[in-house]
Amino acid sequence: MRTRWISTFVLAAALLPAVMNAEVAGKWVAELTSPNLLEPAYVRVTLERTGDTVSGTWGGAIVKGTVKGSVMTLALNNAEGQDAGTLTGKIEGDTGAGGGTMAGVGRRGGGAAAGARAPMPQEVTWKLTRELVPPAKPREITYEPTTFQAYYFAGNKPGIHIFPGDIVHTWSPDSAGTDKNLKRVALGGNANIGPIYVEGALPGDTLVVHLIKIEPNRPTARQGSRIQQFGVTPAYNLAAKYDPRFNGEYQLDNATGIATLTAPTPALKNFKLQMKPMLGCISVAPPGMEAFTGPHLGVYGGNLDYNGTVSGTTMFFPVFHPGALFGFGDGHAAMADGEITQTGLETSMAVDFSVEIIKGYQTQGVREEDPDYIISFGVAGSLQEALKVSTAQLATWIKHDYGLSDSEVALLLGAVMKIEVTELVDPEFNVVTKVPKSTLAMLIPQTSKATN
Amino acid sequence: MRTRWISTFVLAAALLPAVMNAEVAGKWVAELTSPNLLEPAYVRVTLERTGDTVSGTWGGAIVKGTVKGSVMTLALNNAEGQDAGTLTGKIEGDTGAGGGTMAGVGRRGGGAAAGARAPMPQEVTWKLTRELVPPAKPREITYEPTTFQAYYFAGNKPGIHIFPGDIVHTWSPDSAGTDKNLKRVALGGNANIGPIYVEGALPGDTLVVHLIKIEPNRPTARQGSRIQQFGVTPAYNLAAKYDPRFNGEYQLDNATGIATLTAPTPALKNFKLQMKPMLGCISVAPPGMEAFTGPHLGVYGGNLDYNGTVSGTTMFFPVFHPGALFGFGDGHAAMADGEITQTGLETSMAVDFSVEIIKGYQTQGVREEDPDYIISFGVAGSLQEALKVSTAQLATWIKHDYGLSDSEVALLLGAVMKIEVTELVDPEFNVVTKVPKSTLAMLIPQTSKATN
Repeated sequence: MRTRWISTFVLAAALLPAVMNAEVAGKWVAELTSPNLLEPAYVRVTLERTGDTVSGTWGGAIVKGTVKGSVMTLALNNAEGQDAGTLTGKIEGDTGAGGGTMAGVGRRGGGAAAGARAPMPQEVTWKLTRELVPPAKPREITYEPTTFQAYYFAGNKPGIHIFPGDIVHTWSPDSAGTDKNLKRVALGGNANIGPIYVEGALPGDTLVVHLIKIEPNRPTARQGSRIQQFGVTPAYNLAAKYDPRFNGEYQLDNATGIATLTAPTPALKNFKLQMKPMLGCISVAPPGMEAFTGPHLGVYGGNLDYNGTVSGTTMFFPVFHPGALFGFGDGHAAMADGEITQTGLETSMAVDFSVEIIKGYQTQGVREEDPDYIISFGVAGSLQEALKVSTAQLATWIKHDYGLSDSEVALLLGAVMKIEVTELVDPEFNVVTKVPKSTLAMLIPQTSKATN
Repeated sequence: MRTRWISTFVLAAALLPAVMNAEVAGKWVAELTSPNLLEPAYVRVTLERTGDTVSGTWGGAIVKGTVKGSVMTLALNNAEGQDAGTLTGKIEGDTGAGGGTMAGVGRRGGGAAAGARAPMPQEVTWKLTRELVPPAKPREITYEPTTFQAYYFAGNKPGIHIFPGDIVHTWSPDSAGTDKNLKRVALGGNANIGPIYVEGALPGDTLVVHLIKIEPNRPTARQGSRIQQFGVTPAYNLAAKYDPRFNGEYQLDNATGIATLTAPTPALKNFKLQMKPMLGCISVAPPGMEAFTGPHLGVYGGNLDYNGTVSGTTMFFPVFHPGALFGFGDGHAAMADGEITQTGLETSMAVDFSVEIIKGYQTQGVREEDPDYIISFGVAGSLQEALKVSTAQLATWIKHDYGLSDSEVALLLGAVMKIEVTELVDPEFNVVTKVPKSTLAMLIPQTSKATN
């Protein structure tokens, strides 16, 4: 069906007289579809025009071509000068569409393919839209969320569009879907606000999220008082006599940062807990049309439950869809490693954040930076596999950024790497590995030997 | 065979005239053997004598009886006044021997059996030896080890006997068996010094080891530069090009506490590493006649590779054999979590330590205290199982010491517990869980509800 449409279009474009002189120059985003692609792919396009001659870049390819009236024809070459396809179509105002052939459609961002044999050009159709220009001055936005998503899913309709640099003041309900007034605003099970569409984010990019503030916006939280099955031996839980009426409610004091039990038992009368407010869930939309309920986690983030995801940290997510479709929820006023009671101190949160986009570089999974560490998340079906995935990303990250050899990075990790078991009670496990920035500051970067 | 011997002995004792007035009073250790025991069991015995009447305790039992000449006959009752057996035998000087019946032989220390139905008395033979009295003043001992054990094994002949309180100055070779002069003194593969026989330690006790000083006693260490198979994804290691000639030797400076590479590559020219000298292996003899080579770990300790086992910490081991048979080795000047390059900065160590015995209380596995945390070790065949074992011991420990309920301890752990992955490259996995002492200091101890 697509093939027939392209042929018809190309024929029509060639036969019709030019009706206007298209404004070809500028920055564009091309959406590409192809019989070889499960979902559309996206590349950034920059075009310049001199008379009827067009030049520029189309994703990783260099383009040269002509424009006559609204009809544009482009020849693509890769960085080595090899044929990378031919595209023909029509530009009208701020959109364009056409077809042709193109090599490497749907390849992930980054330079992993550098030096590899050029792939054969494949049949594509394309649509161009102009890249939106962010406001000259970042905006302060107050976002009152009204949409809460039970699924991590690219099909969720965005609740708001923001630009990189905007400072967003918002809030999220607790994992049970209740807000600062203990009013039920969403389903339970870790509903996330939004999603938040980040203008300019494309698959193959990295979404950078600066978590400026995470703070409980109500004075109470609730914590579980049973150790979950993955947190302790079966024998222990068989013998344990948990009190179903045990009251795990806390009073939260943002001024002092201290949480205390609302109705403590005699043994816990003096128990005070230093709050370390965190977001349990934070995510972009997962790849393709995959859909996961709130308790899940993966390369897209989700229910990561890292007690280091606090005010002042920066997170990095691989972008799988235009706009990234960012969201969060499941706030905890504090939480032990591993969330072994299947909860932290569950509460609703006031959250301030801003975002950036790293264009054309996609992290393998979720990453974070705090003032002291670079942090790699590994999510998998067991603790051991999660740890392996986490270490692999951390090693690759350092190799990419500092141009270290495999032996150098191994020595470094074997000397200073820290491991944190962050999540062990959910459908997937999350293990964090991290390296101090003080160590990285001692490295002398070499010519890059790795790419992602 | 045993049965016939007892009968003969009892007969002989009854027929022979008393030849001396035995010195029955005092503190004794009874070694018990029985057709129902795989290995001997041990109980502490305290006897008083008034005329021909003997009274006291025999393990957990209350004894009353008579002594005529050297022949002693005792009736045992448990704490509830139930019959717990009858013993007859002969005391001569500082030893004694006999037979009879006894209930609960070989039960573990601790009060787990309190309230349970009294077990039936079983046939036993017994030998008494006097409990050794520690020197009035703890000694300073310099121990030059000459025996290095390739196995964790109760059959190893002690290299030295010490008393609780003695301060021992000694050293251990590195994991390759080389000493401070890089001279090979032992086989490679984590040979441990000793074993060190601790006078007065009995199965069912806990050995407490104060690690006063752990410090490299030579100026070099060596670290691996490949990530071990359990530390990273197979895909990563398949693609990695490790340099077999990579030089992982460090120079160690005890004065500054800094390690630097001997021959750094350009990228690592400025790399400095804060030393945190630790013992990778530290152990008592494993239960029964089990024998494990140096890389193994378990409830007896062994190759735990915890980078928190440093100067100023105290460790706790369940005692499985008289004398505990303590040992250590495999020093690391520093090591990342998990020992992902299968080594730390391997070096020989100067070690000062002293020991104590907690009598009649046996920890479930290895424990540690540092200035800030109580620390539970969990060793098992996977990270997940190791974590479960570790949490179970930690929860039980806190319940025992503070009399918390199951719900209280669960809430507490779910709020403050930290998890550390300490060892993932050896035959067993080691996960540490820990709770801050600052949290424990806020607890109001309740009447004990748990026993171990």
